[in-house]
Amino acid sequence: MQKLKQQVYDANMDLPRYGLVTFTWGNVSAIDHDRGLVVIKPSGIAYENMKPDDMVVVDLQGNRVEGQWRPSSDTATHLALYRRYHQLGGVVHTHSTHATAWAQAGLAIPALGTTHADYFFGDIPCTRALSEEEVREEYELNTGKVIVETLGKSNPLHTPGIVVYQHGPFAWGKDAADAVHNAVVMEEVARMAWIAHSINPALKAIDNYLMNKHFMRKHGPNAYYGQ
Amino acid sequence: MQKLKQQVYDANMDLPRYGLVTFTWGNVSAIDHDRGLVVIKPSGIAYENMKPDDMVVVDLQGNRVEGQWRPSSDTATHLALYRRYHQLGGVVHTHSTHATAWAQAGLAIPALGTTHADYFFGDIPCTRALSEEEVREEYELNTGKVIVETLGKSNPLHTPGIVVYQHGPFAWGKDAADAVHNAVVMEEVARMAWIAHSINPALKAIDNYLMNKHFMRKHGPNAYYGQ
Amino acid sequence: MQKLKQQVYDANMDLPRYGLVTFTWGNVSAIDHDRGLVVIKPSGIAYENMKPDDMVVVDLQGNRVEGQWRPSSDTATHLALYRRYHQLGGVVHTHSTHATAWAQAGLAIPALGTTHADYFFGDIPCTRALSEEEVREEYELNTGKVIVETLGKSNPLHTPGIVVYQHGPFAWGKDAADAVHNAVVMEEVARMAWIAHSINPALKAIDNYLMNKHFMRKHGPNAYYGQ
Amino acid sequence: MQKLKQQVYDANMDLPRYGLVTFTWGNVSAIDHDRGLVVIKPSGIAYENMKPDDMVVVDLQGNRVEGQWRPSSDTATHLALYRRYHQLGGVVHTHSTHATAWAQAGLAIPALGTTHADYFFGDIPCTRALSEEEVREEYELNTGKVIVETLGKSNPLHTPGIVVYQHGPFAWGKDAADAVHNAVVMEEVARMAWIAHSINPALKAIDNYLMNKHFMRKHGPNAYYGQ
Repeated sequence: MQKLKQQVYDANMDLPRYGLVTFTWGNVSAIDHDRGLVVIKPSGIAYENMKPDDMVVVDLQGNRVEGQWRPSSDTATHLALYRRYHQLGGVVHTHSTHATAWAQAGLAIPALGTTHADYFFGDIPCTRALSEEEVREEYELNTGKVIVETLGKSNPLHTPGIVVYQHGPFAWGKDAADAVHNAVVMEEVARMAWIAHSINPALKAIDNYLMNKHFMRKHGPNAYYGQ
Repeated sequence: MQKLKQQVYDANMDLPRYGLVTFTWGNVSAIDHDRGLVVIKPSGIAYENMKPDDMVVVDLQGNRVEGQWRPSSDTATHLALYRRYHQLGGVVHTHSTHATAWAQAGLAIPALGTTHADYFFGDIPCTRALSEEEVREEYELNTGKVIVETLGKSNPLHTPGIVVYQHGPFAWGKDAADAVHNAVVMEEVARMAWIAHSINPALKAIDNYLMNKHFMRKHGPNAYYGQ
Repeated sequence: MQKLKQQVYDANMDLPRYGLVTFTWGNVSAIDHDRGLVVIKPSGIAYENMKPDDMVVVDLQGNRVEGQWRPSSDTATHLALYRRYHQLGGVVHTHSTHATAWAQAGLAIPALGTTHADYFFGDIPCTRALSEEEVREEYELNTGKVIVETLGKSNPLHTPGIVVYQHGPFAWGKDAADAVHNAVVMEEVARMAWIAHSINPALKAIDNYLMNKHFMRKHGPNAYYGQ
Repeated sequence: MQKLKQQVYDANMDLPRYGLVTFTWGNVSAIDHDRGLVVIKPSGIAYENMKPDDMVVVDLQGNRVEGQWRPSSDTATHLALYRRYHQLGGVVHTHSTHATAWAQAGLAIPALGTTHADYFFGDIPCTRALSEEEVREEYELNTGKVIVETLGKSNPLHTPGIVVYQHGPFAWGKDAADAVHNAVVMEEVARMAWIAHSINPALKAIDNYLMNKHFMRKHGPNAYYGQ
């Protein structure tokens, strides 16, 4: 697990580096599929003092297997996503400014351009509100469930992030670094969508064929972006 | 007092570090409850030249007890808060951009999401305007009084900050560092609330049970956030 | 080509320095007019690992002449511009936040002040949407063609940038550094135009004689700005 | 003049440090009242290469007295202000983002709060448009004249800045450093006023007695801010 701890530590440290978190408002995890174990940030530890060995190892039911600290209070949300989607290698939660503003606005982040389409195939959905019961008991688990409910049968790697209503963004990817990469993209497209909408409230969503082209040239079977 | 001076100095130096102040537009104080003495930043001294020994010690009536400089011009406001609320260990005033914009707009910063509810239980109030008389005589004292009037019987640690109409934010906490922490949160939720409102003017306040959950999981008797 | 590779490398490295790119979302090229060869950034290589020798050399038909990597996926767009406009020495593409927001809004960046007029003679146009056919086949080439179509008979050094509908900005100049310079200006005037429009939706375009004065004092035959 | 050159150099270098300028879009000058000479930044020299000895000395009619470079293209504007207002020791011009946006919007920056009132007694005016004749001939001189016309009989140290219509901000002060200080304030209150107005379009200007109090506690005969 040492290698995965290092990866999760590095990915967590990237959150302040990319301006996605204030204080301890974020957490990244990654899964070891073979062993069914998840490495996640400890709860409420300041980034500047954190070390790779502070990462906590839990099983998919949330039992602590390794580590001296309590895992992130959002652990149950991460685990719900890993149990449902076997394609996921890493999950991240932040309160990044612009994506959180869309969550507070209660709206999906609309697909308005190629920056968005290079990573997200269609709008970044906003979940429904949790009910009072869902919040009172097993709140973090229910947060995971409402994300799964909202994604439905979508390929989660084609929609590698979501905003939870009145809360904030969750993103994911093939591994911890990829999850953080997608969280950075989400924050940036959330910011652009706000500004674009403010410039022209009557703007139109990206043309479907343009979205398709951009997503596929990076992620499709005949991708030709990169090396 | 040397230890408290160092804490107050450190907390003041955090203001430019967190982007909350331009020039000398901010001040932090802390109280030594046993001795009834308050340590506060000197007035109009540039942050880059300040040292812990430049901090000024005053009693609760504002008489200077130690230090070579005049205390912050806002000292009377800080003292009014300490005299009224014995829970407070630190107080901070800034002109941080977005919180000040809400003060200028004359509106409470609405509770729109969990980022807000993790620290503030309900809206961050905006005071009424001071009258001409209140401004002319004992202005800084009256600023403290209108904050107290606005908070009313609220627990000040459940509403650890306020915006003073046409002026700017004051925040407080268990000690100087906690007060600054809350000032950083206020600035961030002020920014998010502006953007969220701009995205969707018809957005709704955070669901009451969700606010309750988030505040209590961090601050309630059964808090489970952190270690 | 070593000198041109160094220039193109330096210009690419300026993109993150000026805050114009996140990750690898940008590329700069430059042309050696005498040899008819273009030096361009490789596709999808992280800025922090890039070296001058990673730059790729292609001819004006896009055949790789030198270099171990695939050239930027936007190479065909750059080449279309060089083939049409012999005045150009460098071309740059980014997804800079505010210019991209105007592209998503589907609007030209209006000439509102002297900051704009110091570099751009008139609005910064927004292209029409590409058709489904233009996107499906030779998309990058067609992006170049629609830029040329939009510029029409304008002097490209008097309109040293454009926004491609639902995509983002392209800019150009006398050489690679000048192209990046113009991309920085575009991003800044895009930001100012958004804010100005938000302050006063009824604002007016810059007076024609003022635009003329500012552009000409920097770029006209009797220019008197600089040394 | 060596001391004044150093001061003007330092003040110019503060412009990028405070985020007020991109590239060479700014200039600071200061006057030696006894000798009737003005030290100003050379035109179009990059900040990173500038040295104190690059500063140019001109007399009040604009004749170069010392220095190897041409003075800033805005020199005639600075001189018009020094000739009219003997209280001024320093003048600065920038294209800082938010103040420039107000200039493009064609509106005065309204006095909305104490941050503004700590430095500016009332709104920061916006000049009228220059006529075609005023732009064509002696444009920079006429820019100075329209600033003087707009200020009228106001004390320029009570209104230490202005926005020139469709152009950008000019600020001034007792010396070069004070002028830059006021330019930083202008940019910050321009930003706050935009945000406050966006939050609440029906907001009210600062109460007159509150403005008076804040301006006077810093600048009046009985000032008690600072040491």
